Amino acid sequence: MSHVLFTAFSNRPDAVELAHELSGQLSDRGVQSSLHLLESPSEPSISAETLVVSLGGDGTFLKAASLAHRAGAYVLPVNLGRMGFLLTVPREEVVGDIERATANPTVIERIALDVRIGSSTTTHFALNEVVVERAHSGRMVRVTSFVDDVEYLTYSADGVMVATPTGSTGYNFSAGGPVVDSSLPVLLLTPIAPHFTIDRTIVVSDEKVVRLTAKDKEAAVVADGQTIGVLAPGDSIEVRRAVAPVKVVANRSFDLSYRLREGLQEGHA
Amino acid sequence: MSHVLFTAFSNRPDAVELAHELSGQLSDRGVQSSLHLLESPSEPSISAETLVVSLGGDGTFLKAASLAHRAGAYVLPVNLGRMGFLLTVPREEVVGDIERATANPTVIERIALDVRIGSSTTTHFALNEVVVERAHSGRMVRVTSFVDDVEYLTYSADGVMVATPTGSTGYNFSAGGPVVDSSLPVLLLTPIAPHFTIDRTIVVSDEKVVRLTAKDKEAAVVADGQTIGVLAPGDSIEVRRAVAPVKVVANRSFDLSYRLREGLQEGHA
Amino acid sequence: MSHVLFTAFSNRPDAVELAHELSGQLSDRGVQSSLHLLESPSEPSISAETLVVSLGGDGTFLKAASLAHRAGAYVLPVNLGRMGFLLTVPREEVVGDIERATANPTVIERIALDVRIGSSTTTHFALNEVVVERAHSGRMVRVTSFVDDVEYLTYSADGVMVATPTGSTGYNFSAGGPVVDSSLPVLLLTPIAPHFTIDRTIVVSDEKVVRLTAKDKEAAVVADGQTIGVLAPGDSIEVRRAVAPVKVVANRSFDLSYRLREGLQEGHA
Amino acid sequence: MSHVLFTAFSNRPDAVELAHELSGQLSDRGVQSSLHLLESPSEPSISAETLVVSLGGDGTFLKAASLAHRAGAYVLPVNLGRMGFLLTVPREEVVGDIERATANPTVIERIALDVRIGSSTTTHFALNEVVVERAHSGRMVRVTSFVDDVEYLTYSADGVMVATPTGSTGYNFSAGGPVVDSSLPVLLLTPIAPHFTIDRTIVVSDEKVVRLTAKDKEAAVVADGQTIGVLAPGDSIEVRRAVAPVKVVANRSFDLSYRLREGLQEGHA
Repeated sequence: MSHVLFTAFSNRPDAVELAHELSGQLSDRGVQSSLHLLESPSEPSISAETLVVSLGGDGTFLKAASLAHRAGAYVLPVNLGRMGFLLTVPREEVVGDIERATANPTVIERIALDVRIGSSTTTHFALNEVVVERAHSGRMVRVTSFVDDVEYLTYSADGVMVATPTGSTGYNFSAGGPVVDSSLPVLLLTPIAPHFTIDRTIVVSDEKVVRLTAKDKEAAVVADGQTIGVLAPGDSIEVRRAVAPVKVVANRSFDLSYRLREGLQEGHA
Repeated sequence: MSHVLFTAFSNRPDAVELAHELSGQLSDRGVQSSLHLLESPSEPSISAETLVVSLGGDGTFLKAASLAHRAGAYVLPVNLGRMGFLLTVPREEVVGDIERATANPTVIERIALDVRIGSSTTTHFALNEVVVERAHSGRMVRVTSFVDDVEYLTYSADGVMVATPTGSTGYNFSAGGPVVDSSLPVLLLTPIAPHFTIDRTIVVSDEKVVRLTAKDKEAAVVADGQTIGVLAPGDSIEVRRAVAPVKVVANRSFDLSYRLREGLQEGHA
Repeated sequence: MSHVLFTAFSNRPDAVELAHELSGQLSDRGVQSSLHLLESPSEPSISAETLVVSLGGDGTFLKAASLAHRAGAYVLPVNLGRMGFLLTVPREEVVGDIERATANPTVIERIALDVRIGSSTTTHFALNEVVVERAHSGRMVRVTSFVDDVEYLTYSADGVMVATPTGSTGYNFSAGGPVVDSSLPVLLLTPIAPHFTIDRTIVVSDEKVVRLTAKDKEAAVVADGQTIGVLAPGDSIEVRRAVAPVKVVANRSFDLSYRLREGLQEGHA
Repeated sequence: MSHVLFTAFSNRPDAVELAHELSGQLSDRGVQSSLHLLESPSEPSISAETLVVSLGGDGTFLKAASLAHRAGAYVLPVNLGRMGFLLTVPREEVVGDIERATANPTVIERIALDVRIGSSTTTHFALNEVVVERAHSGRMVRVTSFVDDVEYLTYSADGVMVATPTGSTGYNFSAGGPVVDSSLPVLLLTPIAPHFTIDRTIVVSDEKVVRLTAKDKEAAVVADGQTIGVLAPGDSIEVRRAVAPVKVVANRSFDLSYRLREGLQEGHA
């Protein structure tokens, strides 16, 4: 790979500092790099030959993955987060990881979501989940779910999400959903705090299209924690697997079982 | 009782119309009445001798109960709601109910909550629940709970609520909490979509004071579905049983078992 | 198909009677049939050319499916059950269904489980789920789970199951597991009433081998509701997808969404 | 108190040995003591003046509490268990605890259950919970619940329990029930792995009588982990608060919040 793009949030001085430090080290080895601050409205220059490196926690990784996905680039997560549920890399080993990632990367493909709001022709990206949720505090939304145009259930709830296997240990988990091996070709339909309705996740093939319709109240659409739109009553989102997967560099093994046990310990600290 | 005060939301024309109709019928029988629209910023005139009649669904009842509570008045729920989980009264029997309520009411006392935000000296009322929840979409709050100053658990969640027995079949239920007989002297501490933490309701005596502290992010405070304040990181709310109960007129029996079975049927329609 | 084998439990006189009636009708049309009572210790004669017809509820179907699977035969479910969650066929349309099934069947393939107990070389069949559960009332078992020899979680629980997508709406659902489209290539690892441990289902590929080890107490092994063995402390079962699927004749569409909504209604009747 | 009765299971040699050691130490201080092995069919001699000391884990304590309750005696838990969820006492401080308990005990009263099976006139004791559960592996029971003769819900489930606040962190917790402060005057009605029914605990006053009826299948009745009877289809148990509470000596504070956090850590070790 010809170029390394570090990504970080500027309110994480440790991440920004690390980027500069790594940049110097890479320069010594003849690798060009630059830093993109994720709050910036400008688009960084990325090609399929760029290695996008996420310096931060889960939120940073989700943004970096989105940038990489758009360009067909690889993304390497460097977890500096407290929770670090998604992935963890010790700080001192980061340069070595980046070098390996530019030379001979092991890549794991993760399915991502393609979200279309209403009749819009543009689509949005999500790696973890997309949620249709109440637009205002203190009121439930009513959301009807459809799978390939077949009506499923109607929920009165705080929200309803479609999650990927990657997102299964995130918001889906909080809402009571199952943990899903990240290589599986499935989508998860999980309600959040549903009232007097079936509260189980429904697992369907990632070849299905899931539609969520806001029945009688305005609803917000939130992808990977970012509000991406608003639904008027009667409006829908359509969610399908993105054509291309997210290509995550995995120099280290991702052991679901390890992460589960760790998560349990940290979750209660 | 000397006076009947109807309460309704003006976006429920059926409720407003019913108020006028009932007002005429009561006038014929020598009972004075007036209508207070709940969106109005003005304070209605209520004394302990007023019978407050709620015409609408659960939201209307919660507002009417708050008004009645402040004045020590009785509140009679007339449910026009679709869900009608709290209570149901057939339309044609309403005048009879009101007459009985002014003459010889059967009153059920329900505990309510007294909520103090930060170091403020004013308190807020809630009949169902008060929630400390994320102020912004897509991010969890971290909330630490204390019971009589003893630290309990810290949750990463969409929110954490303190609910009354009356509220146990409301948002508490959606969040996975138990159903509690409304006469019991208890408070319910229930997290909403907590991440990797104990997710069970903790039931404590209604003589305890529950404190909820927003750890590291801004949080909203929502009482009975209305935002009543915002917590800066580190700020707390204190929740205790209100000194006086809410006095609900119950001409009809409130059968928890019946309502549970009904709720199940309707919830899935 | 050359031959129809009706299967029923003799304590269901309606099923036995229906078998005789249908047998007469088929005979008139030149189709040979016989009846196998499922309590019988004898093995019925089945070949890949037999159409096995299950007359009864879910328990009957699970037994019939097991017989059919062994011979590579098709199984047609005729639901006479009250719950009828798995599948429903109106009584008067049964002969027509059988004729179509022998002529030009639509077949749905469902994955089944192959269960090996301890070091035994024989394997057991399960279509819904296999459970390692407490052998005695009133005591939890401790069960450690492994996926392809990687240790996952250890549960103190009433039991731990491996379920198929077909079984997802059965015991797995009762235990809090997700609903899974029956065509998906996955296995579900779901604990039953676990104590202070992660209680979520873990979804893995059906190409994985799941091992469940009873730690310190005797445990029973139950496949599709039948006890098939006992584990001494330290013993394990190994569960994998059976090489051949179960071939279910589906003259009617199986609409998961319909069955969910129906199940909700009936479940609360 | 005039006499100390140690109780232990003989398959816990450490407990038996400790009893002998403590007995010697107490004898030196002029306190008489004896050891009752809990497997023994003989009844130990206990009066209201006996201090019953439980040496073991939760199972030992439940048995010792039952013996003490019958005689109106105090029970002192000495936890030697791994989990030790109920209570913990460091080994070297046990003699001091016993001395204080005979001189000037701090006593906590815990409600217990009085269970009547069918039309029997004898009643059974339970401190944690009583369960009506499936008598045979692999089949659900159908259980209808009544509170003070009012019909509540009917469950198809592995079982249905009535738990005390003391038992709320035991089997009730595993089954998804809430954690209840042990001083509260309530009973918990909690289903175990219910199928397509409301799965929430129902909390009622401890002045209510709860009846559980086995509908169409035989069911086992299990109190604090011991099978105490069998219900024929149509038979019921009646559960009410025992007239006298269990009197637990608490030299140490019982901090629910501490125990919750500890339990979480240990539960996942």
